[in-house]
Amino acid sequence: MATVPLISDEAASPEALTVFDDIRLKRNTDYVNNFWRALANDPAQLQAVWERLQSVMGPGTLDPLVKEMIYIAVSVSNGCSYCVHSHTAAARAKGMTAEQHGELMAVIAMASQTNALATALQVETDERFSARSD
Amino acid sequence: MATVPLISDEAASPEALTVFDDIRLKRNTDYVNNFWRALANDPAQLQAVWERLQSVMGPGTLDPLVKEMIYIAVSVSNGCSYCVHSHTAAARAKGMTAEQHGELMAVIAMASQTNALATALQVETDERFSARSD
Amino acid sequence: MATVPLISDEAASPEALTVFDDIRLKRNTDYVNNFWRALANDPAQLQAVWERLQSVMGPGTLDPLVKEMIYIAVSVSNGCSYCVHSHTAAARAKGMTAEQHGELMAVIAMASQTNALATALQVETDERFSARSD
Amino acid sequence: MATVPLISDEAASPEALTVFDDIRLKRNTDYVNNFWRALANDPAQLQAVWERLQSVMGPGTLDPLVKEMIYIAVSVSNGCSYCVHSHTAAARAKGMTAEQHGELMAVIAMASQTNALATALQVETDERFSARSD
Amino acid sequence: MATVPLISDEAASPEALTVFDDIRLKRNTDYVNNFWRALANDPAQLQAVWERLQSVMGPGTLDPLVKEMIYIAVSVSNGCSYCVHSHTAAARAKGMTAEQHGELMAVIAMASQTNALATALQVETDERFSARSD
Amino acid sequence: MATVPLISDEAASPEALTVFDDIRLKRNTDYVNNFWRALANDPAQLQAVWERLQSVMGPGTLDPLVKEMIYIAVSVSNGCSYCVHSHTAAARAKGMTAEQHGELMAVIAMASQTNALATALQVETDERFSARSD
Repeated sequence: MATVPLISDEAASPEALTVFDDIRLKRNTDYVNNFWRALANDPAQLQAVWERLQSVMGPGTLDPLVKEMIYIAVSVSNGCSYCVHSHTAAARAKGMTAEQHGELMAVIAMASQTNALATALQVETDERFSARSD
Repeated sequence: MATVPLISDEAASPEALTVFDDIRLKRNTDYVNNFWRALANDPAQLQAVWERLQSVMGPGTLDPLVKEMIYIAVSVSNGCSYCVHSHTAAARAKGMTAEQHGELMAVIAMASQTNALATALQVETDERFSARSD
Repeated sequence: MATVPLISDEAASPEALTVFDDIRLKRNTDYVNNFWRALANDPAQLQAVWERLQSVMGPGTLDPLVKEMIYIAVSVSNGCSYCVHSHTAAARAKGMTAEQHGELMAVIAMASQTNALATALQVETDERFSARSD
Repeated sequence: MATVPLISDEAASPEALTVFDDIRLKRNTDYVNNFWRALANDPAQLQAVWERLQSVMGPGTLDPLVKEMIYIAVSVSNGCSYCVHSHTAAARAKGMTAEQHGELMAVIAMASQTNALATALQVETDERFSARSD
Repeated sequence: MATVPLISDEAASPEALTVFDDIRLKRNTDYVNNFWRALANDPAQLQAVWERLQSVMGPGTLDPLVKEMIYIAVSVSNGCSYCVHSHTAAARAKGMTAEQHGELMAVIAMASQTNALATALQVETDERFSARSD
Repeated sequence: MATVPLISDEAASPEALTVFDDIRLKRNTDYVNNFWRALANDPAQLQAVWERLQSVMGPGTLDPLVKEMIYIAVSVSNGCSYCVHSHTAAARAKGMTAEQHGELMAVIAMASQTNALATALQVETDERFSARSD
């Protein structure tokens, strides 16, 4: 059970309902998932997160599916169960194949392992990694 | 300073030196970075990590640059300074532009924010996220 | 299911029961929550944690509600579901309003986002942040 | 060394410079700290973070100093060295005393300890923690 | 529900089934636990993890039970619920007593607490900790 | 630079000096390391941590060296650079060999990898892991 009530359409403030409607419109679905209904307890926060999310995850130089896979990687490392589920579903909706998912898993596992080793060994950064073109 | 000595070519065991030489060959450089020199205190571990890394980061259904960006995302979330430096350098060597780096930063920041919110609100996973095609 | 049995009053050692009774007394309730019943498998640990908790969370220069909100912030960042639930309930019992909870969520989300950015960009600490009055 | 160049006033885009000037104005200082100069590589991200930060950390139902202490708690738990330094300095600038800092440390330490115990023991959430007024 | 199907013996590829059979043989049980059935969606990953696990957790200079307790410590700190459960069960199967489990809990709690304090205070590493015999 | 002054013997309160002297006595050295000098800004916290540490890390059913290795594992997972350095030094002082350190690294790396996979795949805990003898 969430630590806050999930806000139904009936209980939503006008500001929150506007965001719910925008979610439905942009995602072409009637369904508003629990994250947004929990956030709706604070309509200003709901609106800020929804707007920023669209800006960040929208068209750019990175493929939308690539963005979802990066999102999954962060969510796994932060141990956010809800986020792993929601963004794995989103990545599949954007076309992620089982093979791509498998490779994503392998990269996350590899990075987690070498992160731990580099931290355990307290390896100092090589000077050349800091060489930038500026 | 690392918690273990960084193994020079002279101090390396034959098994470790073989890995160092393979790193030089595959990466077309004379330089072996500190991570591998620290790992070389345990030649079996050095070999296991190097072999698995090549398998995971090599050709597949995901683009090598995409894999590097996923690696960065995990390293940031785990707070591994060495890994953030080394894989940001690797991503640039594979062609990551400033625009792509900026979008990567934005996705990592967005995910970190919503991860925290979903955890703080203890949002329960929507049933539909669990709907798989199997 | 917990990895250890939850110790009932009947199964508790005399030392553990003394702590249970003190919890009831200080909190003015008959209820001893699961955390303490799990800890009671090691009565010395139970007593040490309970005593230190009272000392830390008791009267001081910070308001008890402020301390609970700081506790929530740490628990969210560490991804401790039990702790998020128990301390959100405790904060409400100490008077946290929905508006205060919303602002707490916003600060946690903001910090999580900039933490990730500062780590991803490996920003070096400005000298002036180290300027102390000593 | 940061993974991106720190953008000087001279190198800043007009959009970035506008944010720099706003930081100087709102903070009543000539100094723009490294975090913002690193973020300025992506002026849109710089602007979005700066605007959201002011909205979140500004006047509300929580005291600005309380918000800074919550920010420190998150930054410590996420292991962000830069953020611990910058927000500890900010909290002192807002009046945090040595006694308050000591209590903040004690709460963070206490929470970190019980977070680990609750996770290690996999304590199940008590039903009563989920009892909300809705 | 997992984000991938748990692969039954019937659905397993020949490569995955070979690993399942090896797990049964080495562990002297008919039961293959969920982690391996989830990994089996990527037979190469399944095989790589299973082989490396045996190599790492097998006989060496550290006692197998000590290795399991170290595994638990990492799993707790990473907040992996599944792993805490599976490795606590494994440690008990290898003879961990309630007293040893209690001491393990105490060390994990202590380390979590001082980790947070050292990070919050940004304590600089003493030169003598870097004094190695090399 | 630490976020608080490191308290010298001259600047220490009588309570802090008593702890410093006890550290010197118990460790049979003149040296008091930076962690304690930072903690000494809050003498009550200093005393509480020092006393609890001795109780937790002292003689018991687990070997003192095993306790140090568990401490390292937690410190690595939490990304505490200071703690990794200080407890690796402590483990060596208690007799940890290079081979034991190598095996510790391997277990930490293995656990970090499977933690990430179990979280990414959201594997559900097998019922039998919950079967306890109570």
